[in-house]
Amino acid sequence: MLQVDLNCDMGESFGRYKLSEQKDILTYVSSANIACGFHAGDPTVMRETVQLAIENDVKIGAHPGLPDLNGFGRREMAITAQQAYDIVVYQIGALNGFLASFNERMQHVKPHGALYNMAANDQELATAIAQAIYDISPRLVLYALSGSELAKAGEKMGLPTAHEVFADRTYQSDGTLTSRKENNALITDREQAVSQVIKMVTEGKVISTQKIAVPLKADTICIHGDGEHAVDFAAYITDSFQKHNIQIAAIQKGEGNK
Amino acid sequence: MLQVDLNCDMGESFGRYKLSEQKDILTYVSSANIACGFHAGDPTVMRETVQLAIENDVKIGAHPGLPDLNGFGRREMAITAQQAYDIVVYQIGALNGFLASFNERMQHVKPHGALYNMAANDQELATAIAQAIYDISPRLVLYALSGSELAKAGEKMGLPTAHEVFADRTYQSDGTLTSRKENNALITDREQAVSQVIKMVTEGKVISTQKIAVPLKADTICIHGDGEHAVDFAAYITDSFQKHNIQIAAIQKGEGNK
Amino acid sequence: MLQVDLNCDMGESFGRYKLSEQKDILTYVSSANIACGFHAGDPTVMRETVQLAIENDVKIGAHPGLPDLNGFGRREMAITAQQAYDIVVYQIGALNGFLASFNERMQHVKPHGALYNMAANDQELATAIAQAIYDISPRLVLYALSGSELAKAGEKMGLPTAHEVFADRTYQSDGTLTSRKENNALITDREQAVSQVIKMVTEGKVISTQKIAVPLKADTICIHGDGEHAVDFAAYITDSFQKHNIQIAAIQKGEGNK
Amino acid sequence: MLQVDLNCDMGESFGRYKLSEQKDILTYVSSANIACGFHAGDPTVMRETVQLAIENDVKIGAHPGLPDLNGFGRREMAITAQQAYDIVVYQIGALNGFLASFNERMQHVKPHGALYNMAANDQELATAIAQAIYDISPRLVLYALSGSELAKAGEKMGLPTAHEVFADRTYQSDGTLTSRKENNALITDREQAVSQVIKMVTEGKVISTQKIAVPLKADTICIHGDGEHAVDFAAYITDSFQKHNIQIAAIQKGEGNK
Repeated sequence: MLQVDLNCDMGESFGRYKLSEQKDILTYVSSANIACGFHAGDPTVMRETVQLAIENDVKIGAHPGLPDLNGFGRREMAITAQQAYDIVVYQIGALNGFLASFNERMQHVKPHGALYNMAANDQELATAIAQAIYDISPRLVLYALSGSELAKAGEKMGLPTAHEVFADRTYQSDGTLTSRKENNALITDREQAVSQVIKMVTEGKVISTQKIAVPLKADTICIHGDGEHAVDFAAYITDSFQKHNIQIAAIQKGEGNK
Repeated sequence: MLQVDLNCDMGESFGRYKLSEQKDILTYVSSANIACGFHAGDPTVMRETVQLAIENDVKIGAHPGLPDLNGFGRREMAITAQQAYDIVVYQIGALNGFLASFNERMQHVKPHGALYNMAANDQELATAIAQAIYDISPRLVLYALSGSELAKAGEKMGLPTAHEVFADRTYQSDGTLTSRKENNALITDREQAVSQVIKMVTEGKVISTQKIAVPLKADTICIHGDGEHAVDFAAYITDSFQKHNIQIAAIQKGEGNK
Repeated sequence: MLQVDLNCDMGESFGRYKLSEQKDILTYVSSANIACGFHAGDPTVMRETVQLAIENDVKIGAHPGLPDLNGFGRREMAITAQQAYDIVVYQIGALNGFLASFNERMQHVKPHGALYNMAANDQELATAIAQAIYDISPRLVLYALSGSELAKAGEKMGLPTAHEVFADRTYQSDGTLTSRKENNALITDREQAVSQVIKMVTEGKVISTQKIAVPLKADTICIHGDGEHAVDFAAYITDSFQKHNIQIAAIQKGEGNK
Repeated sequence: MLQVDLNCDMGESFGRYKLSEQKDILTYVSSANIACGFHAGDPTVMRETVQLAIENDVKIGAHPGLPDLNGFGRREMAITAQQAYDIVVYQIGALNGFLASFNERMQHVKPHGALYNMAANDQELATAIAQAIYDISPRLVLYALSGSELAKAGEKMGLPTAHEVFADRTYQSDGTLTSRKENNALITDREQAVSQVIKMVTEGKVISTQKIAVPLKADTICIHGDGEHAVDFAAYITDSFQKHNIQIAAIQKGEGNK
């Protein structure tokens, strides 16, 4: 039976500021990426989110971002590879503090926003991030854009690497995501989103906006945890997976680092 | 042979801002308290400082502070006990990230500045901090003001607890430090500082400003790592210890958490 | 005809984080207190909020807070009087930048949260804040808790001072607000809230929780701009004022500083 | 008699962190660029630096930077033009708060670090920054890299614009600064630095590293206020100017905005 991981971001509130995260989505996903205080999240939010994930039996990953709370980590910054290494080690460590306090293990690390995008294209940055994860624990799974420099760096390093695809984003013929600046970057029709995902999981390919079938690895699927239709969509994709005999399951079952 | 730990703060630079820390002091102390990014320090400084401590064979502790970089963590803040717990877990975790990357273990945790002082007097806060450390690892040593609420909370929790004394501060008859607002709070004469320390270590007592002998535990001595005379003083105190057959040694030798 | 100012906080969003502020409330209030980036708000939010206030013909005030975004400026911090002076000058200046860009004048300054509360009781802090406002412009109106040390400091300094009362908070017999830690601190019944306000405006007194009539100046009334019933309540209080021949009007009509 | 402005950065300390700024340099320069709290500086440092500049009869300018204290505003960030506008208005306003408290006027605005460099090449960003300055006051002088997009945007907007040159940097044949990544970017010989400056001021040209004479406007010269030789160099350049009948004088004498 085919298996795929379903992941979503969590813990992106900050102090009095609450994002419209749907906790119910944790009943559908197998893995959660928890913000670590740089682009979002704070120590209290992190503890609460770790607890919530554990209660829902969802695997936990660190979601390190650029030090830019005001820009939500979405603005590219000219950090050096060494600085990328340092902020990733710091943020994984910080989240690991809360996991240790719950006697739990971290499954994975998924860079956030601009850090994720920069590392998808920049080999040096990608290598520094993979190294940071590896140095903390070679058993941590790296989540990276399918086929990206970051995914390659993780595999080269010997890290378990999960190629990530997106349910609600369109793709170009070179396997990259259509830029958000383009009109057709987002898939708003949920039928279309789900059938794209099913195709990626079962056939290992995606139809680009240029109508070309592009090969693609799909180990984990990112869905959004915020927005009013998030839970509906999670339920719908889960349902469709059952019909196609695809099982939702975390990448790693308990053998993460501690 | 009598043993005592000699500790100093390290890693309190931030970005382009360098404190006048004397790296040579690491050749004298047995333990270093490394800032974790809230009151001082940043990920790059933390990595470099951890490496420096390892190279000097100095035991490493986390030095968590209040989230107040501009005030250097020295301004009291009305945080809740739960928030104290959360920021301590976060900061220990973050430093542990760097220790893991060097395959090293953390020896101890010493709260910084206003957090240290608040926890010395506030039982609820003290308990929250001790709990945070315990939940990450019961083998971590808590450094706390000798005789304080924080030391008591650590012992009650079952944490190895090191009672800390200060070489260059005077004491009151109730065993507390003379407030920095008083003229006689600081000991500037190094002869006087060293003989106070020798008395604390060998006799377990200190002479208060009221000329009364006060009983006191002295497991670890805090000396300052900044200032132009820091290294001189460290050399001098080391010398005096040898003459009095007192050995400088870290609290814990390698059995810290990982 | 009796006049009273109705004020509410605005511009407390930050980056991607949006507070549930009801813009419609600006059609009811006469003055808005705009956050200045320390406890909440950011440059973009400040510009947008200033524009919104101008479009609604609402007078604008600075709402400076403690440098504590994560605590929303609600946690007391042991800042010095000089630091209070400095952060208030900085924040008034920053908001004045946006007012200048719209060719508008600032009407008033109202400290936020813990800074407001600390200044209500601490004469030295109160004087420093009043001095900061005065040094920028002696024409700026100081909004302070009715009868507080801050109100006294403003009057002594020669600043136009507006005594502020709260619609939804109960009072003690000494004229202070009932602590939020008490069960009866908040008035949730809107009839009761409005009749308390009417009494304060028309009779200059409030009935304390001890059932004693306490004299009180009421130049401006603070209502909340967030929460789902905020606009309803603003409409209701406006309606009640009309029935009691009380006119809602800003403290100052255009003679603020520039 | 030829006149030229001599400017240096000031007020880049932060809390306990002190940069090695040489206050004596204020006896030589005619204008100071004061950090505004984003890349460096804090409210207390700003007040103290404004006072120091006034005491030395040095004209004051705002030195706004990117919101990146840890990177000292030297890392490029993908901010939008609107965000550039907003952070510049905010920071000019904040510094103007302190100027108002001293009853002084701001002379100029000089963006810092990566913001300065990005605006030198990016027309949209340059226009947004010039607009921000203009909207606060059309009398403020814009300091911009000589011949840059920012200088052009300022002139097009109708702002008084000072073309800035550097004493200790080499130039390329297209008039741009040699990148700091190149070995020959910096001029370390002070004779060479001064004769380059004299040539720029008296002849309006600079010899590029390719040995070509490049025309260049030189209204203001940037020298560094930190480093152990800073004051020596300031004295030396002042001396050389006297010998060449060049007078050091601020761009604007008292007609700045208030």
